[in-house]
Amino acid sequence: MAAINSNFLKLKAGYLFPEIARRVKAYSDAKPDQAAHVIRCGIGDVTEPLPPAAVRAMHEGVEEMASRETFKGYGPEQGYEFLRQAIVDHQFSGLGISADEIFISDGSKCDTGNILDIFGKGNVIAITDPVYPVYVDTNVMAGNTGDADENGTYAGLLYLPCNAANNFVADVPAEKADIIYLCFPNNPTGAVATRPQLAAWVEYAKANDAIILFDAAYEAYIQEPAIPHSIFEIAGARDCAIEFRSFSKNGGFTGARCAYVAIPKSVTGKAADGSRIPLHQLWSRRHSTKFNGASYPVQKAAAALFSAAGKSQVAALIGHYMGNAKLLREAVAAAGLPVFGGQNAPYVWAGCPAGLSSWDMFDKMLGEAQVVITPGSGFGSAGEGYFRISAFNSRANVVEVCRRLKAVVA
Amino acid sequence: MAAINSNFLKLKAGYLFPEIARRVKAYSDAKPDQAAHVIRCGIGDVTEPLPPAAVRAMHEGVEEMASRETFKGYGPEQGYEFLRQAIVDHQFSGLGISADEIFISDGSKCDTGNILDIFGKGNVIAITDPVYPVYVDTNVMAGNTGDADENGTYAGLLYLPCNAANNFVADVPAEKADIIYLCFPNNPTGAVATRPQLAAWVEYAKANDAIILFDAAYEAYIQEPAIPHSIFEIAGARDCAIEFRSFSKNGGFTGARCAYVAIPKSVTGKAADGSRIPLHQLWSRRHSTKFNGASYPVQKAAAALFSAAGKSQVAALIGHYMGNAKLLREAVAAAGLPVFGGQNAPYVWAGCPAGLSSWDMFDKMLGEAQVVITPGSGFGSAGEGYFRISAFNSRANVVEVCRRLKAVVA
Repeated sequence: MAAINSNFLKLKAGYLFPEIARRVKAYSDAKPDQAAHVIRCGIGDVTEPLPPAAVRAMHEGVEEMASRETFKGYGPEQGYEFLRQAIVDHQFSGLGISADEIFISDGSKCDTGNILDIFGKGNVIAITDPVYPVYVDTNVMAGNTGDADENGTYAGLLYLPCNAANNFVADVPAEKADIIYLCFPNNPTGAVATRPQLAAWVEYAKANDAIILFDAAYEAYIQEPAIPHSIFEIAGARDCAIEFRSFSKNGGFTGARCAYVAIPKSVTGKAADGSRIPLHQLWSRRHSTKFNGASYPVQKAAAALFSAAGKSQVAALIGHYMGNAKLLREAVAAAGLPVFGGQNAPYVWAGCPAGLSSWDMFDKMLGEAQVVITPGSGFGSAGEGYFRISAFNSRANVVEVCRRLKAVVA
Repeated sequence: MAAINSNFLKLKAGYLFPEIARRVKAYSDAKPDQAAHVIRCGIGDVTEPLPPAAVRAMHEGVEEMASRETFKGYGPEQGYEFLRQAIVDHQFSGLGISADEIFISDGSKCDTGNILDIFGKGNVIAITDPVYPVYVDTNVMAGNTGDADENGTYAGLLYLPCNAANNFVADVPAEKADIIYLCFPNNPTGAVATRPQLAAWVEYAKANDAIILFDAAYEAYIQEPAIPHSIFEIAGARDCAIEFRSFSKNGGFTGARCAYVAIPKSVTGKAADGSRIPLHQLWSRRHSTKFNGASYPVQKAAAALFSAAGKSQVAALIGHYMGNAKLLREAVAAAGLPVFGGQNAPYVWAGCPAGLSSWDMFDKMLGEAQVVITPGSGFGSAGEGYFRISAFNSRANVVEVCRRLKAVVA
């Protein structure tokens, strides 16, 4: 008989966003006259079109596929050199990252999930709470946790609470962890880590021989010059960190699909025989065995984001979404609710009105304001009492969301 | 300290195709005047441009991404309904597969590797020998094997020898297996399984409560009407089989990236507590947690392959490659070598000249004929003494390969 991976049975209900989609569908089915008014600020999905530079390059890539002389079949699993080099030149300039330390993929969700393939059993996994659910769920699937309690808190994970007291940036723990997930600018709270805060994490990782999995998918939204965009801006990080980046939120590639991982060759983990093995070697093998490269026209479009025109168009996109975030922050404050994030990130993190749980607030916003937000508790038990509003929308929709929020809450 | 997955250290050398690429590069560097003459019949990569119907649809998809009104962000992780339905209508008509049993992905290499996530430990894994290396290597990574011997044969796997005696179609074994990988038309041997042969496998799987992982990436190349294209043409397969399909080899999507898995809801495995769990439920959870959908313009292009124009263009592509295969078969025979495959598959499987190992023949063909083939032993120890020639090439190149093969071998 074929044994299944019973760790899957520890997973709670649906993954957060499918559950939201289910509730929105149920509402729309029950109130068809209201369905057209629903504005979605739930899932962190971009809404504006691809930058023209990317569109043009993607068309060119498609056209190359139309002719035998320029046709592209299997590309390098690690991605085309033109894109890897452009990433190093434009995203990691001066940080000592080389093109062969970049691995192109079709998405950060895949990368942050698949990275566990290269790690062994018995590692103490530290995650912030609240947190992007993929980090938790993929560890559950991999058997790195015990069972969940009624709050969805899994035995065996080291949760690092983030709250108003620490401004939603976790302090290094007293306990020893082996693998630490950090995400800055943070999804879902919008918090950013200062250079000293990241330096403390790198110091902790080196002291504990731990690995930092640094998710920088939202780095393009950083507005304050002093905030690091990459963990590799911190001395020593090249020995203990892997960084995840994406074109989803800067170039709007959520439907086009392109991301990458930076793994310095100097980062190592320990094998069962005690030897030190470069994680680069392991990921390279994983990537070339279980992945076959990202779509060529998409890689070409991604590279075009680094052209002068592309950079300026991306900056305009970011400016648009950050303008939305400012309006949402102001509206949450005007409604009398605690507000966090939204200053270096496209997410506004708000406290629920007194007496309402996160899902209560979700249902209230959907039912009374026809606005989809994300319940904070969906990101972990420490997210209870908060909700996330995404700034990914048209300006008109955001203005309307602000109006409805104030009408319903104030 | 962070423990790595030490199973990776059991893997032998490089994955086959990177190793071939390394040898070709070393040759080209050493003999730059010969480099331009090298013809690649090694890796099974298509060479002809995308069908015009796909190119047109992909351009349209890109154009939709260029406008706010038609922009596509995150799609359904399982793929767009328009593509899932088209697949069911055109590929599984009458076989009882519904659209929600189809999961779109970015490649069969990913799917056949990632599928192991949903299975537990302790399963007896059966693979044919020779075999597509990804099946083996991903099981090694997952810890489903012991160490390899000097031939690259891993302890703990149940190898099913394929050879001239059984016409490269494995018989059901006397031993009990829990998971069986079958690939027809076969990569690398080009063999196909008849309906009675597949029926014997389904009967075996049902008798042993086993799961068949059926890789049908090359089904479009089947010429003989009696040969099944899908495992689901066999009664009972809906209870014990998963099928992998791809647009790589029919539509030429190796660089565009799109594939799919068909998992009937009736296929179950056993959980640790003895309960039966549908694999569909597990893969659905895996797919929505660790994958974020295939690129939208690519899915749109894939669907266009099922239009009347697309079907006719795909048929012309297949006809072209199968014409190549016929020439290659004739040339191998004319060179006095044993020849298999190439009649319902784009691969010709040839016996090496007396006294030459597979890698000897690889080096001879590269050094003397400037032709890249794939050494049979790269697919497993039972492949020793054989080599694979891919029919994916221009007609002119194939004619030249035939000429050189005969010159060097005959």
